[in-house]
Formats: sequence, structure tokens, C-alpha cells
Amino acid sequence: MRAMTWQGDSLHLIDQTQLPHAEDILAIQAVPELVAAIMRLSVRGAPALGVAGAYGVVLAMDADDPTVEASQGHFAAAVRTLRDARPTAVNLARMVDRVASVVAHGVDAGHPLAAIRAAAVAEATAIHDAEVDASRAMGEIGADLVADLAPDPAAVRAMTVCNTGGLAAVERGTALAVIQTLHERGALTEALAVETRPLLQGGRLTTWELGRMGAPHRLCVDGAGPFLLARGAADVVLIGADRVAANGDTANKIGSFSLALGAAHAGVPFVVVAPESTLDPDTPDGTAIPIEDRGASEVTGVGDHRIAPEGTDAANPAFDVTPVSLITALVTERRVVRFDRGETL
Amino acid sequence: MRAMTWQGDSLHLIDQTQLPHAEDILAIQAVPELVAAIMRLSVRGAPALGVAGAYGVVLAMDADDPTVEASQGHFAAAVRTLRDARPTAVNLARMVDRVASVVAHGVDAGHPLAAIRAAAVAEATAIHDAEVDASRAMGEIGADLVADLAPDPAAVRAMTVCNTGGLAAVERGTALAVIQTLHERGALTEALAVETRPLLQGGRLTTWELGRMGAPHRLCVDGAGPFLLARGAADVVLIGADRVAANGDTANKIGSFSLALGAAHAGVPFVVVAPESTLDPDTPDGTAIPIEDRGASEVTGVGDHRIAPEGTDAANPAFDVTPVSLITALVTERRVVRFDRGETL
Repeated sequence: MRAMTWQGDSLHLIDQTQLPHAEDILAIQAVPELVAAIMRLSVRGAPALGVAGAYGVVLAMDADDPTVEASQGHFAAAVRTLRDARPTAVNLARMVDRVASVVAHGVDAGHPLAAIRAAAVAEATAIHDAEVDASRAMGEIGADLVADLAPDPAAVRAMTVCNTGGLAAVERGTALAVIQTLHERGALTEALAVETRPLLQGGRLTTWELGRMGAPHRLCVDGAGPFLLARGAADVVLIGADRVAANGDTANKIGSFSLALGAAHAGVPFVVVAPESTLDPDTPDGTAIPIEDRGASEVTGVGDHRIAPEGTDAANPAFDVTPVSLITALVTERRVVRFDRGETL
Repeated sequence: MRAMTWQGDSLHLIDQTQLPHAEDILAIQAVPELVAAIMRLSVRGAPALGVAGAYGVVLAMDADDPTVEASQGHFAAAVRTLRDARPTAVNLARMVDRVASVVAHGVDAGHPLAAIRAAAVAEATAIHDAEVDASRAMGEIGADLVADLAPDPAAVRAMTVCNTGGLAAVERGTALAVIQTLHERGALTEALAVETRPLLQGGRLTTWELGRMGAPHRLCVDGAGPFLLARGAADVVLIGADRVAANGDTANKIGSFSLALGAAHAGVPFVVVAPESTLDPDTPDGTAIPIEDRGASEVTGVGDHRIAPEGTDAANPAFDVTPVSLITALVTERRVVRFDRGETL
């Protein structure tokens, strides 16, 4: 499954807010539409945000010709809105910057618009292809690591949080790519997905992807994850990442830290799977990672279903930070970093 | 608020499944109705289950006269169904047994039915009144303890899970009684309630009770609790209990263990508040506490709102067990047991 495709002048992506009930494709032709889709999480997941942002710079060019002095301000403003649509995942800002710098280089060199646009599309496509290749490699490297770590490498039970599959990372994904590879190797006994309130990416999206790949799986509420680990229900916890700081501290979907505490208490390996594009050497540690608070309404209701009394306020951090001391290893498309053995990035 | 009242021949209780959207009162006149109400959680919470079960024995008498030999089998069967309606909270079985033994004693002594019934009602009422008195005492003793433990005793921020207020424990409650007492003393800065999936007792019931008492509060998803503790958002975690084993291990609503891990990691005191009626000296430790699994449907949807793809299976432990090593103290209506100082039950 490719959750996102570039169609020459528009970005087609599956609307993740409608899954698993409907498989709607959005055809996005302008930056404001893309920013809105990102903010309401129609497209989400660190690598997918990076790819969407990369193509978004091309959409910004199509609206405001950056080779014309008068429209450069508009182009730059559109790129900035896109870059800042969500703060925690480093991929979005980084990939927007990468394509924008290709554009800036072309403008500075006085290249014609068509050539600059072609270069920008090529850069975005390269980013896209690299994420797909990275997913496949992470799946292989991660499955090898899990085989080393699990008590029975032929019968692995893996717990995961949020959605880290093809939806989040264009194809196959990060943590879910490892689970998919284990399944393809015949080594997966069960994937246990925690539902990931408030937006239920585990309950809605991971279950949907696991079902499509035919992998045995069960769902549980977030609060049950650490207890199920304590009762021996899983051999490994696999999570993705929105940003990995230079010291290894990892920002990921809210609830990840809780599973890390549960895994440490149960003596179960806790493994982060993320492409090199999610590593951020400019962020020294977890305290420097901005954590988005997405407001009360996601917590006080589920979709249109109201839970709490009218007017209830909420704390809604969308991400948390797991300190490197609780992380067994990081798997990227190039390497395994065994934090538990004192290795560093 | 009295969430439950005995009306001479029926038990009136607020239907907790409809809160906070409607305040419906159920008038229950027969054991099968009561068992159904308990199983669907119209009445829930360890002390409230004990009181409901106690009156339920009177309802069983009204249906099948236990002084008539022929109907004793029916009476005993009804009492048994009631006793076993939910397995984890010890109060239900214990209080059913207490009133049933009053009945058995009267039958053995050849007392007339009216006298036996009056004795059973008196026993149930005594259980009811004792829980109310216990709630008030737990509130006072717990608030004193929190004042000792909190960095600023005049400005306490308390995190809690599930619902442990008047709804769960007839009046004022257990952990929520402590929060209410802190609020009445002017010492509560904020109560942070985790929503408590799957049945959202935190999001639906605790917010409703906190609103009624005018206490400042916010809601958060279960997965955010440990991270908010790590970021210093609360000074104490207060939970109720469904059963406290002889060694102090505590069964409580799923998600409690996760907060205990978060509290230990953050160095925040973790306090269990439960009446003596919830202590179970016959259960040596947490591994001996039966954990109810309530099936997939509570997890795959929220009320009528479907989350997961059709056919998704789930693990749904309704409770977890927090080992005594993670518990700072137990507060009952009679005492404080400082597990962190090596004290035992």
C-alpha cells in the first residue's frame, strides 16, 4: 500500500481520519488544504509528514512563482506555514527545508521556473523513495534484532502503540514494518496494539493495517499495556518516533513512555524504530523537544460521541518523551544502536 | 449525594451508565435486575457493590421465602448469582455473605420471616451507614496524609483514575473523598482525572462529581498520566481499590498500575484509599486476585461509536494489580499504613 502518491500537480492521500470506516482519497492541490489536512491528522506519522511536506513545497511553487520577485514573499510564507503545521515531528520541517533549499538554489542561480520545479519534484520524489527503502530496511534489521531479543524467535508477541505502518510512513512503516517482516517470516504469534487515545490511531489504523496484512492481533486500551506486559503478554515493545534527540531520548505518541515504564518493570525489551530522517542531532535531549498540546475537545469526546460534562477542561499532550535509559535499542534503516549496552548515536 | 437508597422494598440507584448525560434513577425490586445492573456497571465501585449486594439479599428473600424449606434452594441460588456477579471487588461477595449469614442464622433459630427480614435490612443498613462513615473518615485521614506528603500542603495537585466518589462508594467515596476534603479545606489546586478507558468512568463520572463539588479539575487520556507525572503536573496520585491483598498488593481499575509506575519514576507519592471492607486477608498477594476480562466490545467501540474494524479481537482486563513495592501508603477509615516505611497490614 502506498498511502500517498504524487500525481503531477496534486498530492493524493488516504484520509486517515475516516479509517477504518471509509477509504477516502484526498486530492490536494494547494498548501492551505495540505496544512489543514496535516492539522486535522488526515495525514500523520513522522515520515509521511516529511514526504507530504516535501511535495507541499511544489504546491507552494505552483501557487506563487518563486522566480518572480513580487511573489517570493507569498511563496516563503506558504512554505513557513507548512513547515510549522505540526511542531513535534522533525521530519516535516526538515523535508520542507530540503525541497525549499533546492528551490532557493535554483532561483539564486537564475534557472527557469520549469527547471526549478522539476528539481523540486525530483527532490521530493527522492525523499519519498528513500522513506520506502528505509521502511523495508528497518523491517529487516528490526526483525533480526527482535529474533535476537525474544525468548522464542519463531513465536514473537509484539506490543505497539499508535500507528507506524504504511499510513504513517508511506509504505510498510517503522515499528509496524518490523511486525510485518516478522509476520512474513512466519515468526509473529501476535501483535498487541494499544488503542492510543485520544485519536485512536492504534484502534482505528493499526488494526486495519494488521488485518490487511493478515497478521494475528488483538487490541487493548492504553491503560492495560503496562499490566499486560507485567503478566507476560508480549516479548517486545516496538514503537516509532516523532523525534529522536542526540542523546537518544525519544518523542513519540502519548502513551509510549507508559509502555516504556511497563517494559522496564517487566524486563521486556523496548525498541524504537525510526528512519535516520527522524534523528535530530540539533536537539540535545528530550527536554528540548516541543510537545504539542492539542486542546480539550479530543479528550472530552470520541469523534462526535461526547464523554465529559460540557465545559470540562483537559490536558492533552499529543506526545511524550521516553528517556534513553528506558530504551533497549534504536533501529534505523542503517543500524542498530544498543542503548542498553552503552552505545550512543 | 447518596447514590443509592433503600426504599423499603426496592433499591433506588442512579444509573451510572447514563451519566453525565442523564441522571436516571433505577428502582430495583428483584435480584436478576440487580445482577444485570451490576454486570452492565449501572452500579459499580467496590464499596457501592458491597452495599448493593447487601440489600440484594433482602430482595432475594422477598422473592423466595427462606423460612420455607421448598424455596430455600431458590433463595440460595439467587444469593449465589448476586455474589458472583463480578469477581474482582471483594466487597460484593463479602457483604452478600454477611447479610446471608444473618438470614441463615434466623432460619436456623426458627425466627419468623418478618423478624429475619428486619434483621437483614438492619444489617444491610448498618453496612450502608458504615461505608458512609468510612468515606468521611478516609477523606480526613487521607487529606492529613497528603498534607504531610505534598511539597505545598496548601496547594495540592492530585491525579486520580476511574471513579472513586459518592457514585462508587455511596457517599463521598475513597480517593475522591480525599480530594473532596482537600477542596473543602481550600488546599486543592487541581484534580487531574485520567479518563479510564474502556468505560470512561474518569471522563464521565469523576469529572461530573468534581464539577458538582466545584473543585478545579482537568481530564487527560490514560496514556498521558505517567508523562504528566514526569513533567511535574501532580503532587500525589490517589486511587481506590477493588481488593487489597494481605501483603498490600492492590487490585484496582485498569490503568492504576501504569500510574504507579509513573509515580515511582517521578518520585511522586502513590496512595491507595480504601475502606477496611476492601482489605482481603484471605488473598495472600496480587497473583491470587482474579482479574475479570470483560470481552472485546468495550474496547472496539465507545458506546455506540465503533472504533476498530469489524471482527477485531481485544484483551480487556478490567483491573490490574499494583505491587505493594510501588505503593507509598494505604489509607483506610481507621489507619494509615506506610508501606514506604516498611509497615504492613
